[in-house]
Amino acid sequence: MDRADRRGSGEREASSLEERTTRPGALPGNRYVRIVRPKEFRRGLGGTYVATDEALRSPSAAGRAYDVLRHILFGRPISTELELSERLSVPTGLGVLATDNISSSAYSIEEVMRVLALAGTGALFLTMPIGIAIIVVLGIVIISQTQVIRTYPGGGGSYAVAKHELGTLPGLVVAGSLLIDYVLTVAVSTAAGVDAIGSFVQPVYQHRVFFGVALIALIMLGNLRGVREAGLIFAGPTYVYLLAMLGLILFGAFHIFSGTMPPTAVPPAPFPATGTEALGVFLILRAFASGCAALTGAEAVANGTPTLRPPEARNGVITVLLMGSVYGVVLLGLTFLAAQTHALPDAKEQETIMSVVTRTFVGTGPYYYLVQVSTSLLLILAANTGFTGFPRLASVLADDRFMPRQFSFRGERLAFSVGIVALAVAAGLVLAAFGGSVTNLIPLYTIGVFMAFTLAQSGLVRRWWVRHERGWHWRIAISAIGAFATGATLLIVAFTKFEYGAWMVIVTLPLLVVLLLSIHAHYRSVADALVIEDPDRAQLQVATPIVLVPIARLDLSSLRALAFAVAVSPLVRAVHVATSKESAAAFRARWDSWSGRHLKDGREIPLDVIESPYRALIQPLLKYIDRIDERDPRPITVVLAEFIPRHWWELILHSQTAFRLRWALLFRPNTIVIDVPYHFASVGHQEEPLGREA
Amino acid sequence: MDRADRRGSGEREASSLEERTTRPGALPGNRYVRIVRPKEFRRGLGGTYVATDEALRSPSAAGRAYDVLRHILFGRPISTELELSERLSVPTGLGVLATDNISSSAYSIEEVMRVLALAGTGALFLTMPIGIAIIVVLGIVIISQTQVIRTYPGGGGSYAVAKHELGTLPGLVVAGSLLIDYVLTVAVSTAAGVDAIGSFVQPVYQHRVFFGVALIALIMLGNLRGVREAGLIFAGPTYVYLLAMLGLILFGAFHIFSGTMPPTAVPPAPFPATGTEALGVFLILRAFASGCAALTGAEAVANGTPTLRPPEARNGVITVLLMGSVYGVVLLGLTFLAAQTHALPDAKEQETIMSVVTRTFVGTGPYYYLVQVSTSLLLILAANTGFTGFPRLASVLADDRFMPRQFSFRGERLAFSVGIVALAVAAGLVLAAFGGSVTNLIPLYTIGVFMAFTLAQSGLVRRWWVRHERGWHWRIAISAIGAFATGATLLIVAFTKFEYGAWMVIVTLPLLVVLLLSIHAHYRSVADALVIEDPDRAQLQVATPIVLVPIARLDLSSLRALAFAVAVSPLVRAVHVATSKESAAAFRARWDSWSGRHLKDGREIPLDVIESPYRALIQPLLKYIDRIDERDPRPITVVLAEFIPRHWWELILHSQTAFRLRWALLFRPNTIVIDVPYHFASVGHQEEPLGREA
Repeated sequence: MDRADRRGSGEREASSLEERTTRPGALPGNRYVRIVRPKEFRRGLGGTYVATDEALRSPSAAGRAYDVLRHILFGRPISTELELSERLSVPTGLGVLATDNISSSAYSIEEVMRVLALAGTGALFLTMPIGIAIIVVLGIVIISQTQVIRTYPGGGGSYAVAKHELGTLPGLVVAGSLLIDYVLTVAVSTAAGVDAIGSFVQPVYQHRVFFGVALIALIMLGNLRGVREAGLIFAGPTYVYLLAMLGLILFGAFHIFSGTMPPTAVPPAPFPATGTEALGVFLILRAFASGCAALTGAEAVANGTPTLRPPEARNGVITVLLMGSVYGVVLLGLTFLAAQTHALPDAKEQETIMSVVTRTFVGTGPYYYLVQVSTSLLLILAANTGFTGFPRLASVLADDRFMPRQFSFRGERLAFSVGIVALAVAAGLVLAAFGGSVTNLIPLYTIGVFMAFTLAQSGLVRRWWVRHERGWHWRIAISAIGAFATGATLLIVAFTKFEYGAWMVIVTLPLLVVLLLSIHAHYRSVADALVIEDPDRAQLQVATPIVLVPIARLDLSSLRALAFAVAVSPLVRAVHVATSKESAAAFRARWDSWSGRHLKDGREIPLDVIESPYRALIQPLLKYIDRIDERDPRPITVVLAEFIPRHWWELILHSQTAFRLRWALLFRPNTIVIDVPYHFASVGHQEEPLGREA
Repeated sequence: MDRADRRGSGEREASSLEERTTRPGALPGNRYVRIVRPKEFRRGLGGTYVATDEALRSPSAAGRAYDVLRHILFGRPISTELELSERLSVPTGLGVLATDNISSSAYSIEEVMRVLALAGTGALFLTMPIGIAIIVVLGIVIISQTQVIRTYPGGGGSYAVAKHELGTLPGLVVAGSLLIDYVLTVAVSTAAGVDAIGSFVQPVYQHRVFFGVALIALIMLGNLRGVREAGLIFAGPTYVYLLAMLGLILFGAFHIFSGTMPPTAVPPAPFPATGTEALGVFLILRAFASGCAALTGAEAVANGTPTLRPPEARNGVITVLLMGSVYGVVLLGLTFLAAQTHALPDAKEQETIMSVVTRTFVGTGPYYYLVQVSTSLLLILAANTGFTGFPRLASVLADDRFMPRQFSFRGERLAFSVGIVALAVAAGLVLAAFGGSVTNLIPLYTIGVFMAFTLAQSGLVRRWWVRHERGWHWRIAISAIGAFATGATLLIVAFTKFEYGAWMVIVTLPLLVVLLLSIHAHYRSVADALVIEDPDRAQLQVATPIVLVPIARLDLSSLRALAFAVAVSPLVRAVHVATSKESAAAFRARWDSWSGRHLKDGREIPLDVIESPYRALIQPLLKYIDRIDERDPRPITVVLAEFIPRHWWELILHSQTAFRLRWALLFRPNTIVIDVPYHFASVGHQEEPLGREA
């Protein structure tokens, strides 16, 4: 211990990777290992070594080929230090974080009309009033979100608000809701995108599940390239869509107000004039609830604020306000056009209402295709918002130990790779399970996001109430209106869509919360078991191990295992399992004729031979180890001689007893396993004279 | 070394599993481990311990449930010592080894007629002459086989003869031919058995591949129960079939000779009277070749002689002669009945000729069903002959190092389990590939067995010629006639059936032989690399290992790993990979504040910190190990702290860096890996005070 005082930082340098000479006696019992300055590492601060690009190179040709392929697919690795330069500007941020919300304008009004049309096409006069109601709720949500961003600029969005202001359980309800919703965002957006293309390319419509899954895989790849590169890829189409929409709305409005409106286009299978349901309050509420899908994605900016450049909070507020304004204009304009042209939705989902409206005004010329293509692209990019949100929220949950730790690791490109892949798999499965139909998926969709909105706004109400921060009066008013509006919408959505699929979300959510809680409980108990209570006093419990060496045959690989066992402990026993009396006697005779069992100091390695009449190897060995272990507290150590052939496929030519024994020992408490490999390729190498005898 | 003289067998006893007291100083540096007399082992001869049934018991409830299930399916384990009592008597041996041959009588004559009918039903008059030719060849083969059994009673049959008399390559050609043929035996027999049932149960005919594969699985299970039990299950139907056949033949012959023959039954889709091919020499030879399928299985007794009770050779000869006589009578009788009744084969393979003949004489009463059911059973049991032959031949090849070693291990029931399962899988695949059709499979079938016959007989000719043993003149005559007859048949079969599928065997055989040879080459080079040249002089090369301990976090599991490292070597280095400057500094600070890094003797465990800017863990560690290894010949040892949770599925909650690192180190030469597990469940246990410090 007194050495601690004499040790300085210079001393530490000397004891690390640099070249040193052997200094016997300087530290009793410790022989220095001589190492040259390694080319794969450069010196860092405080005695650390920084791995250079060289350290990442695979030693094998196959490994290097894999690296090249990976770099082409995902790009070259990005250093942790470059994290800040990977952040998004406001225009790019709008492209990445707002696409989900903006893209909903392409289908949300159609979902309203689809419900209304159930009461006959006459009920479609309610499209415009319901559209305005949706925009009002959107406005309230947007303003609430600016509050969330200002209060929790560190990300986590609604989850962070609910957890800190209301407690862990509400926080997890929000988290679970959002996770479900992100999966549905990806599934719905891709399905809607495929639908939009399917409107003018029939084969795509016929194989919509296949194209949907393929698209999800493509977006996953883009996101594995990192958030900034994904932003650069995906921001463009958002702006093309916005311009195309504004142009269409202006052109349409001009026609309507100048009275030169062309005759409305008719979809392939228009809804019939007489409906199957009565136009009651429930149907109107259901139509409103369907349209509220338009509000999903409004939380994306608050969740993704940490991906924006500093000052994050200010940029987040600008982004969310921009998103709300642009979106409001497009949604209102489209609703207006649809209502004025009395366009009918297609009963068979073969043509979107957007396509019908566009055809009405501009025919099927280049502009029509511009609108359709940019809509499809945008709907697909809306899926990308899910890819921004899910992995980030999962990483926050993993940091809080509610999800597996792997979700918080950043990959080579600083992306949360595990979350990205998990989301793609989940969304692909959901998409396939629902046959790629937007209408089937929509009822599940909005519950989660409104649950998150409601709880987050309630959390803010509580915050202002408790803290009395500056302007708490008007803040509480805004949050309370937000909580009430989104809460009411949540109830409407849950009730009206319960039987159409919302029940699945209501069943899944508590299960997911329980899962998150039990993961947390596991991590907590593990941390409790592993934590060092007092690092200043924790000492190593050093004990000489009892070393058992199971030996199948007395060959060079067994000798290596025995030599290692003798080097590390004076308590070595060899054990052989024989399948017959004859082979037991034969092994004993061979062992006795082998002079190597006598060590230089006159000791002999004791040998136990076990005869196993039923030819089982593993169980008798385990029982033998049990008996040895029973009376001795010292750790049992088993040395396994493993033969490693030149090629992995040659492994099947060797009975993998060592592998099976190791697996059996893995779950045996207090048992240390030592693998002493004998590499077929390294025969020349291992014959080098080795150092001193222990 | 001088201790060797003082050591007697009593001393050896004392140093083995029995209870002992600690005798410090008795053997310098070696501390005895105290062990009680273990209840799972009893004392054997020469200081060995014999594992009792207790030693096989699984410690866990799930393991015991699995044991119970296994014992129900396969029976209780059979001790190696009971091998002799598992042998077969001649009657059982006939049931097990002769079924393949005898069962061919059910379909071989039909295959002849099927080929003849291609030239019109008028050509069927040749059925009887071809049948007699086949029986002549059979007689020659049977007599040759008695010679093989007498000369090589140790099993291996034709393979052993060819290998010893002609050399390794002819031996492997025989082995390869027989392996292919056994697979085809199982496929053909099952297909024919399913056909026979399909003659009167339509759904079975429609799903013949499914029923065929299910049957193979069932026979596999029976064989995994061990050869004697399989014999007891399978011998009965052979005798029922023989009696039923003899009865039918006698009854039919009585009708024919008394002139009271009933009108011949007509199959559902009889061959047309005018054929599609001309009746030439080639067609006749092809018909003969098809019928020679009847000779397959004639080699089974010679291969399986070691499964018979002693005296094996005599019992083998009796069995093969019995088989030949019974078979000759049945084959001749059936051919006679078919020829006399002018029965027509069914063009669509829906009814067998056996069914047509039986219907002619006894109608569709109980006797008809007795014949059909016993035929079907026998055809299925013929597959069992494949299951007796393939695993046994594979084990002989494995002993000779031409097949993976696992083929020579006997399972709990003394059966060669790996060979049995491999055969079932191969036969199932072949059956499925050929759609379960006997006619499609037959052309592939006979090549292998005639290749084996020809080479084995040639080998015997050479043997008698070289050795001039007693009676070599007449022996050489028999073997030469056998070699000529089977060789001629081989050529006829190969030529006439080449385009119908025989080419597949002719292509596969050399590939299989090359595979066997390269497996042998691998084992030989491994054995060369591993063998201890001079066991009397082989010494252990004991060297103090350099021990590296990668540490992710300083917790109790890392402390255990470090404690073990310190216990086994004075050359310990800890290494930490950090993903950022900050975490590198934080780890260094925590390490410096931990007093446990100072050992009792004042030494300190050196720590290297590697900063990995791209967050990669494995590659920088591997490069670090390379650099340490580069300048020091002592074996590099890596100690991995592994956290083992209570349940295996909890493993996904822990990033498996240790597992990945271990896999990466597996193929690194000269690197020993030590797993120090930290069992979540064993927290209480591990806190016990451990022994002395190293």
